[in-house]
Amino acid sequence: MKLNFANDRLLAVMAHPDDAELLCAGTLARAKADGAAIGIAVMCSGDKGIGSTPQADLARVRQEEAAAAAEVLGAQLFWLGAGDGELFDSYEMRKKLIEIFRRFRPTLVIAHALEDYHPDHRAASQLAEAASWFCAARGHVTDSPAADAPPALWFADTINMCGFEPQIYVDISGHLPVKERMLALHRSQLGRSGDADFAPLAELMRRQCAARGAQAGVAAAEAFRPHHAFKRIGAY
Amino acid sequence: MKLNFANDRLLAVMAHPDDAELLCAGTLARAKADGAAIGIAVMCSGDKGIGSTPQADLARVRQEEAAAAAEVLGAQLFWLGAGDGELFDSYEMRKKLIEIFRRFRPTLVIAHALEDYHPDHRAASQLAEAASWFCAARGHVTDSPAADAPPALWFADTINMCGFEPQIYVDISGHLPVKERMLALHRSQLGRSGDADFAPLAELMRRQCAARGAQAGVAAAEAFRPHHAFKRIGAY
Amino acid sequence: MKLNFANDRLLAVMAHPDDAELLCAGTLARAKADGAAIGIAVMCSGDKGIGSTPQADLARVRQEEAAAAAEVLGAQLFWLGAGDGELFDSYEMRKKLIEIFRRFRPTLVIAHALEDYHPDHRAASQLAEAASWFCAARGHVTDSPAADAPPALWFADTINMCGFEPQIYVDISGHLPVKERMLALHRSQLGRSGDADFAPLAELMRRQCAARGAQAGVAAAEAFRPHHAFKRIGAY
Amino acid sequence: MKLNFANDRLLAVMAHPDDAELLCAGTLARAKADGAAIGIAVMCSGDKGIGSTPQADLARVRQEEAAAAAEVLGAQLFWLGAGDGELFDSYEMRKKLIEIFRRFRPTLVIAHALEDYHPDHRAASQLAEAASWFCAARGHVTDSPAADAPPALWFADTINMCGFEPQIYVDISGHLPVKERMLALHRSQLGRSGDADFAPLAELMRRQCAARGAQAGVAAAEAFRPHHAFKRIGAY
Amino acid sequence: MKLNFANDRLLAVMAHPDDAELLCAGTLARAKADGAAIGIAVMCSGDKGIGSTPQADLARVRQEEAAAAAEVLGAQLFWLGAGDGELFDSYEMRKKLIEIFRRFRPTLVIAHALEDYHPDHRAASQLAEAASWFCAARGHVTDSPAADAPPALWFADTINMCGFEPQIYVDISGHLPVKERMLALHRSQLGRSGDADFAPLAELMRRQCAARGAQAGVAAAEAFRPHHAFKRIGAY
Amino acid sequence: MKLNFANDRLLAVMAHPDDAELLCAGTLARAKADGAAIGIAVMCSGDKGIGSTPQADLARVRQEEAAAAAEVLGAQLFWLGAGDGELFDSYEMRKKLIEIFRRFRPTLVIAHALEDYHPDHRAASQLAEAASWFCAARGHVTDSPAADAPPALWFADTINMCGFEPQIYVDISGHLPVKERMLALHRSQLGRSGDADFAPLAELMRRQCAARGAQAGVAAAEAFRPHHAFKRIGAY
Repeated sequence: MKLNFANDRLLAVMAHPDDAELLCAGTLARAKADGAAIGIAVMCSGDKGIGSTPQADLARVRQEEAAAAAEVLGAQLFWLGAGDGELFDSYEMRKKLIEIFRRFRPTLVIAHALEDYHPDHRAASQLAEAASWFCAARGHVTDSPAADAPPALWFADTINMCGFEPQIYVDISGHLPVKERMLALHRSQLGRSGDADFAPLAELMRRQCAARGAQAGVAAAEAFRPHHAFKRIGAY
Repeated sequence: MKLNFANDRLLAVMAHPDDAELLCAGTLARAKADGAAIGIAVMCSGDKGIGSTPQADLARVRQEEAAAAAEVLGAQLFWLGAGDGELFDSYEMRKKLIEIFRRFRPTLVIAHALEDYHPDHRAASQLAEAASWFCAARGHVTDSPAADAPPALWFADTINMCGFEPQIYVDISGHLPVKERMLALHRSQLGRSGDADFAPLAELMRRQCAARGAQAGVAAAEAFRPHHAFKRIGAY
Repeated sequence: MKLNFANDRLLAVMAHPDDAELLCAGTLARAKADGAAIGIAVMCSGDKGIGSTPQADLARVRQEEAAAAAEVLGAQLFWLGAGDGELFDSYEMRKKLIEIFRRFRPTLVIAHALEDYHPDHRAASQLAEAASWFCAARGHVTDSPAADAPPALWFADTINMCGFEPQIYVDISGHLPVKERMLALHRSQLGRSGDADFAPLAELMRRQCAARGAQAGVAAAEAFRPHHAFKRIGAY
Repeated sequence: MKLNFANDRLLAVMAHPDDAELLCAGTLARAKADGAAIGIAVMCSGDKGIGSTPQADLARVRQEEAAAAAEVLGAQLFWLGAGDGELFDSYEMRKKLIEIFRRFRPTLVIAHALEDYHPDHRAASQLAEAASWFCAARGHVTDSPAADAPPALWFADTINMCGFEPQIYVDISGHLPVKERMLALHRSQLGRSGDADFAPLAELMRRQCAARGAQAGVAAAEAFRPHHAFKRIGAY
Repeated sequence: MKLNFANDRLLAVMAHPDDAELLCAGTLARAKADGAAIGIAVMCSGDKGIGSTPQADLARVRQEEAAAAAEVLGAQLFWLGAGDGELFDSYEMRKKLIEIFRRFRPTLVIAHALEDYHPDHRAASQLAEAASWFCAARGHVTDSPAADAPPALWFADTINMCGFEPQIYVDISGHLPVKERMLALHRSQLGRSGDADFAPLAELMRRQCAARGAQAGVAAAEAFRPHHAFKRIGAY
Repeated sequence: MKLNFANDRLLAVMAHPDDAELLCAGTLARAKADGAAIGIAVMCSGDKGIGSTPQADLARVRQEEAAAAAEVLGAQLFWLGAGDGELFDSYEMRKKLIEIFRRFRPTLVIAHALEDYHPDHRAASQLAEAASWFCAARGHVTDSPAADAPPALWFADTINMCGFEPQIYVDISGHLPVKERMLALHRSQLGRSGDADFAPLAELMRRQCAARGAQAGVAAAEAFRPHHAFKRIGAY
């Protein structure tokens, strides 16, 4: 069985500038190769992802890194700009994200898992979930007209696979190089390998793709769980 | 085994003006027939449930529709008036709902499922859960005196049964007509059948009652899951 | 909310002669008081429940104890006679139990939890589940004609509440004395209080009823989980 | 996202002659249209599926009905011939099914859910699970050589959706007619509509496909849950 | 198997002044006896835990009671001072708790269960979870330097064991007296035994430790569930 | 927190001769270093674990390999000798294993997960579970006297971590070399690296220990889930 994304528009709603690279860029790359349109919405600016050597103007640096990575993929980048650790579900943030959904018009949204280890990831996930419903409700007025229908929504794996039970594995064996190239562009983060709050990212990402691949009998995979909610479940 | 609600006071805490009709009005009708007192608290005004033909003063229209439907049932209606999509758990909203609990003094509260598909439903559920505990704590001062004990609390089914695992089925075979009559009074919503963000409600409701009934071997049923929390679990 | 069992026929399918007393006799007593007919099917003879002082002819003694306890309740006793530890799901045992179901014609079957701690309990549960379906299938021929429909089925709590998530609590506050009187008749087992493989039963039973009661706000309760399977789910 | 089955070989391992029609024939038909090879293994002969008007030689009649339905689909039919209600996991039955796996060489096996309502379904599921592993282990010698690798395995929905949590929905909107035509060929069963142990099958099937479709936003769907076990998880 | 806490620093993050006594003080006492350092952070002031006889200046009284109890244990007390019922997850409260984590530097944090019955407990749990991650992220600046690594985190049992599935039991048989002595110091609460919103605390606590002990074969135990999240899982 | 196994007797009940090496030998080695007594019971002879180059007398070869590996650990080896793929729960096999439990007298049994991917693993797990209860019941007579109490029981991780939710992680960072040395002695299996039904074992084992370690913040770990059943739950 092979999923085909040719007629899809995928929007990854991630908390930090490098989260898409870690958790779903292989799937985005595969969908792109099928002919899908790709968007990445980054909720937080990454301003507090500082290493032992502080960096001036970190949010701006990270936005540039994210833009470069998005370009590798051919993805549209949306930047929400919340402060790290300060992202919460609110009507104001919902409306910002609803407007992005209405402009990009995704058929499939990829969000963090609601039970993810990072508070920002969980808040981003709640906002993506809310926007996936409200984007098609015309009563919530933003600049763009309401979507025709809510998109399907998948929750992405957690870092190190902690506490996540996958339901769908996407074979990304042929797309690992793109994912690696994208991650390599986040230089401000890769330089933090000696930091206590930071794992060696590239290695961690490769090992996780290999582990998920081994579970499903392919060289590399990314794992997801569809959101089993009214109109957000896709039928494949 | 037959549940008898003769000595009960049921309070449905629902997000929008027609949610009780969709998810629990059959059970309310049956309890009413047993002799129970019935209340419905509507958290949001339904002001954004607009169809393709906009309607002036929608919140007022919907409050009148809800009042008419409550009258069919012989239920007391409480109107909280939050904006659609803008309902969040807060101490201010908690206190408003605590006061309603203290005035109505429910023995059984019916709330949306915490994992429901709609952000407003989930916020309403969190508020109902909080009020079900605090209503009996005299330290939280409102106009009315504290309740003697927290009420039992049941979570209602989700629309289209997505992701909901029922634990209790209530046979509403004889009470479907009341439920249908109540729903028919929400004319502002039934007129939205062509809208992308809106299913044909009456048909959807009937099909769900039939599907839950088929699972339990009766003509029509509504499904619930008791809240397994200290003093909110009922013993039947 | 109060369950009424007036029109019911309850059949407890238990592994050993004193399991009904420990896990569901309060509910049986309450249903009896409502006017229900009560049956108890004991799958194993209890022949290996020997204490430090061996007892001759233990299976016969225990059958007499079980009969005396059933008499207290006014219940019909069915004795399947399998050896302790030697009970497995098989077509032969299924047919024996199907015939009992067809003779007693239960509307509600109470079985051990499928995840219970004791291998005999789990086998008894599998057999009760199988019989609850096959009793209404006329292709499975036994002495009595097929039942009109499968009965509802509830799984009972586990000893010490280990690993069991209740979904329904039955208030047995007024029926604890019957339960205690029944258990007291199992003298061969109560005498084993010093045995390593045996807890002080009467005390354990009282504590569990009190703990389940405390969770649900009553003096004493028994806990169950309905079987969520086609035609075995009841609507109350 | 659309699943493509062009390079697949699907084998449905079902308990009774009409179970594939009820639970997965839409998916089989869609895969067939993609170019996949289809097989159906029926574990039990259906000999006890008798209605109020007994039928001579029922197992033979049902095998002919199943063969006719398989022909509509263009599927290969395997007939295991166990007695209804007498199917259990055993090494003898495992070897029979292993040999069928080795001859058909499926890439995707569809089995009943392990928690299905019918004891035969559960036994068939255990056997399919065992064969999905052992078919690729050359130490288990049968007539045909071992498979190169275990196939992926999906568990099918339960009748009336009782207690089943779907993880994958397959859109069968265009393939419902084939499913209906196949089911209509099981005349011995459709004639049983007045029987207590038998629901009106065609109607039940249509309603379930519509309900699963409504959850996922399409006209008709079938629901599955992948087996999350070593080498039986597929990556799509 | 015996857990040894000799090299640990345990920090209990509890909602109200007597929650540690009820849910984890036995484990704290045992760790203390092993040589561990112990801290207790109380998020709410307990200002609304008033009984039928109102008490002036309740928050101050309760802080003194908590301080006396902490002294029995030899624990450091941290007082966050939020109003009862008014505790919510916010960046401001996160930063206060992050600073406490950075000063105490726990290796193991004990928090309320995320599914606990009390809204304040759940908010305290969310804050403890957030702080357990952010305390080691230097981008979140507070007075003290960032921790070297996130601590492990365990969720504590719920009152009356409602809806909690333990994963780890700690044998506190020898430490029940300390727990009882600590609880006895909360005189403002023990005097509320006749209140509708208040159970007889000392008795409830003893019964729960006995019930958890009985499940695990010891005289008294406390139950926990590790947080299965990146870097918060401990390896023992 | 550090687990100490000094006063323990660990018995691993595994299906095949190399399963202990793959899933729990690091924990056994650590317990041994603490001073615990170690036993390994192998249920199946491994007679069907043949590679592309058949090997005469495979069961005998594998028993010798297992004995050599057990010697590295200083463990007592018990050999049950069932045929691969032919292991089922039966009273006969239960009694054999009960007798081994009574001779070895474990305080902690490590069994395969009940939901493991391999049918033999699941059967071995059922038998270990049954023996863990019956070993202390004197009514089940074998050569040795009944145990004083049932042992605690932990379920081990699955190969490739498929579908397993750990509850306890044991840090085996210092004991990986012993585990590797033991596995290296299973030469008949390591030679099968080119076989379709066989992963490169040593590599797979190392990767899994590293992945579990990464989740818990140590170099290498093994993951377990305690059996939450009456008298088989341990308090640490």
